[in-house]
Amino acid sequence: MNAPLRLGIAGLGTVGAEVIRLVRQRRGQLAQTTGRTFQITAVSAADRTKDRGVDIDGYSWYDDAVSLARDGDIDVFVELIGGEDGVARASLEAALAAGRPVVTANKALLAVHGASLARAAEERGVALNYEGAVGGGIPVIKALREGLVANRISRISGILNGTCNFILSAMDNDQREFAESLREAQDLGYAEADPAFDVGGFDTAHKLAILTSLAFGTEIAVDDIYVEGIENVSLQDIRAAGQLGYRIKLLGVAQDTGHGIEQRVHPALVAKSSPMAEVAGVFNAVSLAGDFAGDLMIEGLGAGAGPTASAVVSDIADIALGNMRPVFGRPAAGLAKYRRARMRAHEGGYYIGLQVFDRPGSVAGITQCMADQAISLESIIQRGGAARRAAESVMPVALVTYETKEQAIRSALEAIERAGHLAEPAHMIRIEAA
Amino acid sequence: MNAPLRLGIAGLGTVGAEVIRLVRQRRGQLAQTTGRTFQITAVSAADRTKDRGVDIDGYSWYDDAVSLARDGDIDVFVELIGGEDGVARASLEAALAAGRPVVTANKALLAVHGASLARAAEERGVALNYEGAVGGGIPVIKALREGLVANRISRISGILNGTCNFILSAMDNDQREFAESLREAQDLGYAEADPAFDVGGFDTAHKLAILTSLAFGTEIAVDDIYVEGIENVSLQDIRAAGQLGYRIKLLGVAQDTGHGIEQRVHPALVAKSSPMAEVAGVFNAVSLAGDFAGDLMIEGLGAGAGPTASAVVSDIADIALGNMRPVFGRPAAGLAKYRRARMRAHEGGYYIGLQVFDRPGSVAGITQCMADQAISLESIIQRGGAARRAAESVMPVALVTYETKEQAIRSALEAIERAGHLAEPAHMIRIEAA
Repeated sequence: MNAPLRLGIAGLGTVGAEVIRLVRQRRGQLAQTTGRTFQITAVSAADRTKDRGVDIDGYSWYDDAVSLARDGDIDVFVELIGGEDGVARASLEAALAAGRPVVTANKALLAVHGASLARAAEERGVALNYEGAVGGGIPVIKALREGLVANRISRISGILNGTCNFILSAMDNDQREFAESLREAQDLGYAEADPAFDVGGFDTAHKLAILTSLAFGTEIAVDDIYVEGIENVSLQDIRAAGQLGYRIKLLGVAQDTGHGIEQRVHPALVAKSSPMAEVAGVFNAVSLAGDFAGDLMIEGLGAGAGPTASAVVSDIADIALGNMRPVFGRPAAGLAKYRRARMRAHEGGYYIGLQVFDRPGSVAGITQCMADQAISLESIIQRGGAARRAAESVMPVALVTYETKEQAIRSALEAIERAGHLAEPAHMIRIEAA
Repeated sequence: MNAPLRLGIAGLGTVGAEVIRLVRQRRGQLAQTTGRTFQITAVSAADRTKDRGVDIDGYSWYDDAVSLARDGDIDVFVELIGGEDGVARASLEAALAAGRPVVTANKALLAVHGASLARAAEERGVALNYEGAVGGGIPVIKALREGLVANRISRISGILNGTCNFILSAMDNDQREFAESLREAQDLGYAEADPAFDVGGFDTAHKLAILTSLAFGTEIAVDDIYVEGIENVSLQDIRAAGQLGYRIKLLGVAQDTGHGIEQRVHPALVAKSSPMAEVAGVFNAVSLAGDFAGDLMIEGLGAGAGPTASAVVSDIADIALGNMRPVFGRPAAGLAKYRRARMRAHEGGYYIGLQVFDRPGSVAGITQCMADQAISLESIIQRGGAARRAAESVMPVALVTYETKEQAIRSALEAIERAGHLAEPAHMIRIEAA
């Protein structure tokens, strides 16, 4: 048996406490697999006295995670503090500067500062592992960074935020509006008190930025992601989508268009027959296409203490065994420049949900605006039973287009709004082959 | 840049030729990722002159794979010959004996001789990688051996044979009988001229044996697998299952029952709402439950030259980087003895497809036989339009039971047959939560 592997854990929230529990509970199994005993030696958090359900008395305590990273008697620094800057970043950088391998589950930090962190890790020749940062317990980083190493990947898409997927699933199952489903998610602990980061699509964007870099070998480019959240998805959109054979999911998609890489986060209609449509509740999934491996999909629990701890400990096991990979699959210096494909050039099908004033000629006017942009319609749903609003009645109309350019859709929608047909702004939702 | 990684490839069928193509095509990408140039130096196959669509003139030729494994100027021996014995086994053992790391996609060899091969590899301290042996391009070995290293796994199940899944999907989609769908699969090249190994469930059993060992840390035990093929699944079974909300899939399942591990391969009814039910055509999928990671499912192309080559090259990349794992996740000497749970003790729901003589009291007699074994019925489907057979009319009856013991079902079916109610042997198909 080799020397024990000494771990310093910074951040003792639910994930940090679960990592401690898991390392203790699987001591034998991990030692058998890796040939080394995992030994937690030091921890750091904001409050030493807080009850976390695990005994931390035997570990050296650091008030300051940077000191733990720098001075601790540790072989691996495990950063579970979170946040794209502050002490998470400072401590992680300190550990790398001291030549210590790092494990983190911090997607924000990687999405924003991944390039410089990767360089720092690779200059020192130490591992920077982050399986827990994307997709929780789903080993998607390993699949991309190692399993698909010989492939060119043309497209990767994912349901990457359990909060949004729970809300959209609940809207569909319980036929409720967004606000009500959000409240339910908050009551169940699946959504934060301030849900903007999740429901606005920003958490998904952080994860997508990491996946894009791994899949395409490009520099991380989170600021170039087109982001739309799910706040404006209505129950009527979900119903109309259902009638048309689709479900609505918040997707992160990165796609090589031939004239740059499209990175986008937005609600999308996916066919009910596609595996992505079946990913319900707090589950996450990643789907991708490799030129040799073909289509691949992985689905699992995308968050939570257990799944994330499982991923964190697998990262530690790789370090215990001396297994190492370039941070984003290729050496940081060899990553290609990210070339952004503009959303206006995006091509695809579109769902358009409209609240139309019930006047003679309004539907004709709307379809004419689409025709003026050379957009072909695949389906129109217009049903009776319109709600009375003020003096005038309003009817819901749902359109589905054949593949067209986003620029054309935007121009058509502007023309429709200008013509005064709409009682509310249009809901435009992209259709995705997922 | 480090020294090139010299590869010797034994077996130049479709997979071997594709590995050559892939290594050449991704030379730069692989060198960038691993820091080493992949260089094929020697090959071996039965016939040197055969046209394989790749030029092999630049490589040393060996008529005998064992000589290649032993004498070749190679750093990695890649065995793509296939078969559980013969030259595949001899050459692989020769490579390990010479202290050379091995990559193989040979599930039969691993399922049958995995224990001794693992010991040989670990004694020499060399890698034995086999991502291509199970699930083709799906990185399921990596997920189990590395990604889920900290988990206890309670259950793993999979659609592991593309031929069977294609046939069952075709029966369902085209409403055809088994024999006709098999012929279609043969015409399309998805089934062998002699299909017994695939449709009989034996290929699935080989793959399951490997997954079981990885998931449960037990010695490989292919001979202890209960195996049923899909030859007896009728169109009527598929129709009745459809009416009851299920699809029929050939599954390999390994499950810790508390009194041993159940390993079984058989057709199974899976609920249409379950992700496994959506795995269609030649796709494969593996589903598992880890105690920390939770439920996980991976789906992709389970066979074919491209996907398998993708897996083989990822295995080579691990060797290039010096990354190594015990062959079955834990050192061979530390694998637990496999303790078999008997099928008679299996508990689950059952579908029973019957061809019943249309006589007064026959359905009453059948349900009484079930009641005698304390089996509760969830559904009975008995429809008109029975076919006339000889003088007597026969009607199809489908039963679905609540959870019960397999022993009870077998006893009930024996009693039903003894009572002379049946025009044909009963079709008993297990229902699986998948």
